[in-house]
Amino acid sequence: MKTRAAVAWKAGQPLTIETVDLAGPKAGEVLVEIKATGICHTDWYTLSGADPEGLFPAILGHEGAGVVVDVGPGVKSLRKGDHVIPLYTPECRECKFCLSQKTNLCQAIRSTQGRGLMPDATSRFSLDGQDLFHYMGTSTFSNYIVVPEIALAKIREDAPFDKVCYIGCGVTTGIGAVLFTAKVEAGANVVVFGLGGIGLNVIQGAKMVGAGKIIGVDLNSDREKMAREFGMTHFLNPKDIEAAGGNIVDAIIQLTDGGADYSFECIGNTKVMRQALECTHKGWGRSIIIGVAEAGAEISTRPFQLVTGRKWEGSAFGGARGRTDVPKIVDWYMEGKINIDSLITHKLKLEDINEGFALMKRGESIRSVVEF
Amino acid sequence: MKTRAAVAWKAGQPLTIETVDLAGPKAGEVLVEIKATGICHTDWYTLSGADPEGLFPAILGHEGAGVVVDVGPGVKSLRKGDHVIPLYTPECRECKFCLSQKTNLCQAIRSTQGRGLMPDATSRFSLDGQDLFHYMGTSTFSNYIVVPEIALAKIREDAPFDKVCYIGCGVTTGIGAVLFTAKVEAGANVVVFGLGGIGLNVIQGAKMVGAGKIIGVDLNSDREKMAREFGMTHFLNPKDIEAAGGNIVDAIIQLTDGGADYSFECIGNTKVMRQALECTHKGWGRSIIIGVAEAGAEISTRPFQLVTGRKWEGSAFGGARGRTDVPKIVDWYMEGKINIDSLITHKLKLEDINEGFALMKRGESIRSVVEF
Repeated sequence: MKTRAAVAWKAGQPLTIETVDLAGPKAGEVLVEIKATGICHTDWYTLSGADPEGLFPAILGHEGAGVVVDVGPGVKSLRKGDHVIPLYTPECRECKFCLSQKTNLCQAIRSTQGRGLMPDATSRFSLDGQDLFHYMGTSTFSNYIVVPEIALAKIREDAPFDKVCYIGCGVTTGIGAVLFTAKVEAGANVVVFGLGGIGLNVIQGAKMVGAGKIIGVDLNSDREKMAREFGMTHFLNPKDIEAAGGNIVDAIIQLTDGGADYSFECIGNTKVMRQALECTHKGWGRSIIIGVAEAGAEISTRPFQLVTGRKWEGSAFGGARGRTDVPKIVDWYMEGKINIDSLITHKLKLEDINEGFALMKRGESIRSVVEF
Repeated sequence: MKTRAAVAWKAGQPLTIETVDLAGPKAGEVLVEIKATGICHTDWYTLSGADPEGLFPAILGHEGAGVVVDVGPGVKSLRKGDHVIPLYTPECRECKFCLSQKTNLCQAIRSTQGRGLMPDATSRFSLDGQDLFHYMGTSTFSNYIVVPEIALAKIREDAPFDKVCYIGCGVTTGIGAVLFTAKVEAGANVVVFGLGGIGLNVIQGAKMVGAGKIIGVDLNSDREKMAREFGMTHFLNPKDIEAAGGNIVDAIIQLTDGGADYSFECIGNTKVMRQALECTHKGWGRSIIIGVAEAGAEISTRPFQLVTGRKWEGSAFGGARGRTDVPKIVDWYMEGKINIDSLITHKLKLEDINEGFALMKRGESIRSVVEF
């Protein structure tokens, strides 16, 4: 079949809208009509050429929602008409990682996914006979996609695609880091470094579980207002603190009577990652890295920080097991427990997808969503 | 009263045996006759002058066992004749740290202890009218000591002092890191970097809880034999692996089909700490730092290591709550669950204590114990 898609031909160049060929689902695969997709920093990271594992030409996009159109042989858990969110972190429930019950990082199709291919090591996308690479196993910048059954979360049918598509990455990454990775408990003090989309979702996750102080840190004080709407109780701008002769780590330790119980780095800056660790409480502070640092960058600290009880950890896709947890997050949105609407600042047509990247680069959007 | 003690007058100089003045126990304090004390690397670290917080003149020693001789006003949990192990990490059961149930790092008397003083900010030791500093709140190189009630673990009376004194530091640090900090589960693969006294205790802790592969790593292959007696199942010498063109991290990942579930750094080398983290399993590997690095040294890694599920942690005094857990470890020794006897390679008189340091420096002892 044919499908419209935004194609990334080369690093650093705008996407172009093409009509590409899509092969039907093979065994264990599902054909999905994507109804809406978010544009995420990770798409931009790859498109920019900074991602050392980036492959071109490819169809980017990994934050979508849509409807099952057809299923290949052997697919049991989904059928035509089901509403789904594609998962760049699948959940096979059979591999060593899924069975460990200690991680969400299912590795069932990791190697082919990393090479831009379906599990049988071929691509379903082509144009004029040339194969196009899949991206993160999802490629939601295409109106129709083929994905493995294990990479689809079935969601309720009354959830609006143009909102819950954001659960495919950003919402889950932020809220999940609080609920599934850190398991923040009621009353705990939380610090969030970086008040972009991920940071705001960390904040609303912390609010949802009844955290105590929810402290936001950002160099841009314009972000204070919205963060407070999402549940932030205290705002700190490191520039202001330094101008007054202080430093952000000490300021947080003072504000929390010894340090934060949990901190979340949502920027990808290795210097901030160190601050995020060192501002946590002696004895039990846990610092969770969410942000993606530039290739080759390293984190460092004195080992004394760890020997005296702080823990340095990370979170990918919010620690969520996609098929199990993503439908729950959709429920929470539908029940009004979390706010997605305010985070979706721009709606675009597929033809205008490059404008979505431009809005992101200029820092004007929290999330732009493309509707097909 | 008077007591014999080994006094450290100055960094880098041998201890001298003196008869010093010891003031009696004040409110909440206990007079203890030390029957035996181990000589630990930490005593040497301070005596060498490398410890930036080292104070002189002081009575070192922190790994003792003895008998209560007298109690000050208000002491309720101990009485004359009780057998005890002094605790450099006390357990007040009342401070924010104790009540958190998340750490063993009781801070009730931290500030005075760090200044070489009793909780009322004075010393009980003096010589010719000059105050001598306490050390780690214990000073077990003195035949009689005064310590706060909260810094004494009451133990069974049939336990031999010259063995269980080692539970005052080394045994608990190693076994506790496995049982209390990491909570290693049966079948888990464990890697231990450094096969000195702490490493051997980590190994026997791992064996005690039914770990799977217990892999020891040391540059000195002479240590293989004893480590195997304590439960090590595989030995790796990084020199041999490098000579064959490999590296220790990859060798461990291969041996464990993806990485160790838990690793323990028992050396204090920041480069090894990085290897210890990076050899753990994607998704759930936990690396516990036990070794004390030189002042100012830093650990570093790529944040990707944490984002993909590894956790970097530390352990002090094995995560043991001294009054609660130390008596249990004494029981385990008496029940034959753990071996201390083989680790105590030398017995000395107080007069020969400097020989104990010399044995340690030459790498000839695992643990030397001084009997009073």
